[in-house]
Amino acid sequence: MRYGILLMIVQKFGGTSVKSVARIKNVARIVAHAAKENPVVVVVSAMGDTTDYLLKLARQASAAPNDRELDVLLATGEQISIALLALTLNEMGARAVSLTGAQLGIITESVHNAARIVDIKTDRIRRYLDDGYIVVAAGFQGTTTEGDTTTLGRGGSDTTAVAIAAALGANVCDIFTDVSGVYTADPNLVPGARLLKEISYEEMLEMARVGAQVLHPRAVELARKHKLPLRVRNTFDIEHEGTILRGAGDMEIYRPVSGVTVDRDQARLAILEVPDRPGIAGEIFGALAKRRVSVDMIIQAFHQDGSVNDITFTIKRGDLNTARELLQEIASGIGARGIIADPDVAKVSIVGAGLMDRAEIASEMFSALGRAGVNIKMISTSEIRISCAVSDKDAERAVTIIHELFKLGEEEGS
Amino acid sequence: MRYGILLMIVQKFGGTSVKSVARIKNVARIVAHAAKENPVVVVVSAMGDTTDYLLKLARQASAAPNDRELDVLLATGEQISIALLALTLNEMGARAVSLTGAQLGIITESVHNAARIVDIKTDRIRRYLDDGYIVVAAGFQGTTTEGDTTTLGRGGSDTTAVAIAAALGANVCDIFTDVSGVYTADPNLVPGARLLKEISYEEMLEMARVGAQVLHPRAVELARKHKLPLRVRNTFDIEHEGTILRGAGDMEIYRPVSGVTVDRDQARLAILEVPDRPGIAGEIFGALAKRRVSVDMIIQAFHQDGSVNDITFTIKRGDLNTARELLQEIASGIGARGIIADPDVAKVSIVGAGLMDRAEIASEMFSALGRAGVNIKMISTSEIRISCAVSDKDAERAVTIIHELFKLGEEEGS
Repeated sequence: MRYGILLMIVQKFGGTSVKSVARIKNVARIVAHAAKENPVVVVVSAMGDTTDYLLKLARQASAAPNDRELDVLLATGEQISIALLALTLNEMGARAVSLTGAQLGIITESVHNAARIVDIKTDRIRRYLDDGYIVVAAGFQGTTTEGDTTTLGRGGSDTTAVAIAAALGANVCDIFTDVSGVYTADPNLVPGARLLKEISYEEMLEMARVGAQVLHPRAVELARKHKLPLRVRNTFDIEHEGTILRGAGDMEIYRPVSGVTVDRDQARLAILEVPDRPGIAGEIFGALAKRRVSVDMIIQAFHQDGSVNDITFTIKRGDLNTARELLQEIASGIGARGIIADPDVAKVSIVGAGLMDRAEIASEMFSALGRAGVNIKMISTSEIRISCAVSDKDAERAVTIIHELFKLGEEEGS
Repeated sequence: MRYGILLMIVQKFGGTSVKSVARIKNVARIVAHAAKENPVVVVVSAMGDTTDYLLKLARQASAAPNDRELDVLLATGEQISIALLALTLNEMGARAVSLTGAQLGIITESVHNAARIVDIKTDRIRRYLDDGYIVVAAGFQGTTTEGDTTTLGRGGSDTTAVAIAAALGANVCDIFTDVSGVYTADPNLVPGARLLKEISYEEMLEMARVGAQVLHPRAVELARKHKLPLRVRNTFDIEHEGTILRGAGDMEIYRPVSGVTVDRDQARLAILEVPDRPGIAGEIFGALAKRRVSVDMIIQAFHQDGSVNDITFTIKRGDLNTARELLQEIASGIGARGIIADPDVAKVSIVGAGLMDRAEIASEMFSALGRAGVNIKMISTSEIRISCAVSDKDAERAVTIIHELFKLGEEEGS
């Protein structure tokens, strides 16, 4: 692991990386090594399943836990991790000091459970770094200006790391996790999947949206805003260089397709022969939003006479029952013919910064799937993504076909 | 549980009282009931064995844990308790807010693991109380003026409760534990032991010093200094009125002996025929203090010719090996004849504010033990305490004999 002439490094280790004291010792070795030549801030999550355990306790105490107190409870998870990592680093002879969200100067909105960071008062971090300390920072937490503990919600620790790196003007933010970086496809599905050396923020955001779980989009978005190089690395295999995220304009290698992803947690609903009246689509999707059902792909198909149309959309499979009941009610209310519920859906997507320049890519993808007998149920696209809804049973095969079609397993730039 | 016209109450619940969410619900009912008529601050310890578990993790991480980081780790224990109690109270419809040591404004020395409280900035507590909140306070922890987390060491949560009560000018501080109060003797040893309605701070301090584990002396001393009525009550039997601690001058009932205690964790060491040279006793006890061996009773007996003497003292049984080795070295060094180590020692004590006025009490106690064949190995006294070192096998019998001798089981004032 060489950082060369880099001046300041932020490292972040997730829950699986600090699951036990033994694993924390491994993390401490990585941190101490980096800190030999560079000032280092290391951000850690709660150990393994700690957060789940604390949530279980909270639910035993209260059916609808008070927001403020839930944050006080959850914040203890990261506090345990930072103390143990700082203890371990000191035991190894490194000088380390732990800081909680409040001590780090991470000021958030006065909103609990999913607060946004509004400011980081870096004086204390800088003072410790100047004094030669490794700063061990609690991820996921902050404080209001009134001194109440807040937590940042999903992707919180990644966000803490990127926000601290941006506030300090760090040269790189390394997100250590249990995979070696971002792959062209899930290596569990496609044995030939290849680790990407680099990927743009925008591609990573699209990949996260369609099933790749490596980095939280919130952290990627923040890194993009600050043009902060973000690197994904493997805690358990630090020889790997990992994948670096940077701006599309700073990419060294051009390629039309960077990766193929699959999201198997999908279902499809259709409402048939909806009267063509203004505001009806808004009524349907408004009602779903109120029940917190997120809708993904949407297709509205007009019948030939134009008086009625069919509306089809995809949702998370877990929302199917809620959404089906709601849609049934709406269908009766507006005089639609009925509804169709299809639980057997997966979404296969390709992502690539070069897609927008290459119109033939989409047709190549559809043709290849057609030749292989994979029926495409729906299509949606963005500037750098093409997604197809297919039968869940076809999903793995579709990913393999696409991976081969675009030669994603071959070395970049070749 | 009636507080009558009392204005402000501090309640404290120890680790066994908040061992599980079910027990926290029981605590919440007691707190909510008191809070119906009075402003209440409730101080809690860490749940059950949490502190031991955290210490175990710390020792896995480091053989000699860094003081500062150990405090960050240990403070999470109480933080979990306050969050869960506040969640439970809110679930029950009470308005409660949790505050950590720093949020409570508990300022300590910049010393870790056993910091003393130097100030409590009560603005925030008062603001919440004025707004009708129950304040759920983390025991055992504070903050330095620089914002570092500290812990208070042994008896920390009792001390937090008394210090907050004193700072707020509370009318009473109730220490809830798993016994109903202070007894005339350990009810497990003496079936006729009686719960005391009241006891003076001074008597309680002596009893704590000689084996009664109900309240930490540090908290009692602080209550005495502030003349704060301190009440010991049973979390699991709140119908009991408990025992109230107050100044000796404020006691309603006069009695020569309040209770009899036994400390079975004792051993005795003697160094024989020590040359009678100035400074030798200082050398012996200085060496023991350096190895953190606390010495209790000391007897120095001169031989008839005055040139040598024997020094005998008691220590904790767990320190016997360390102390014996050390004493053997010293004995060789100074030309003493040798040492005797006696692991079979228990210390039986009577405590009573009236002892100082009644010289006959001591002789009655010695005679009764003698008649029963209990050999007294050593004696030490204070103004309100008489202690006898006896064989451990005689300890229980000695306690029973003394309890009967002074009719401690009979109703007070009768």
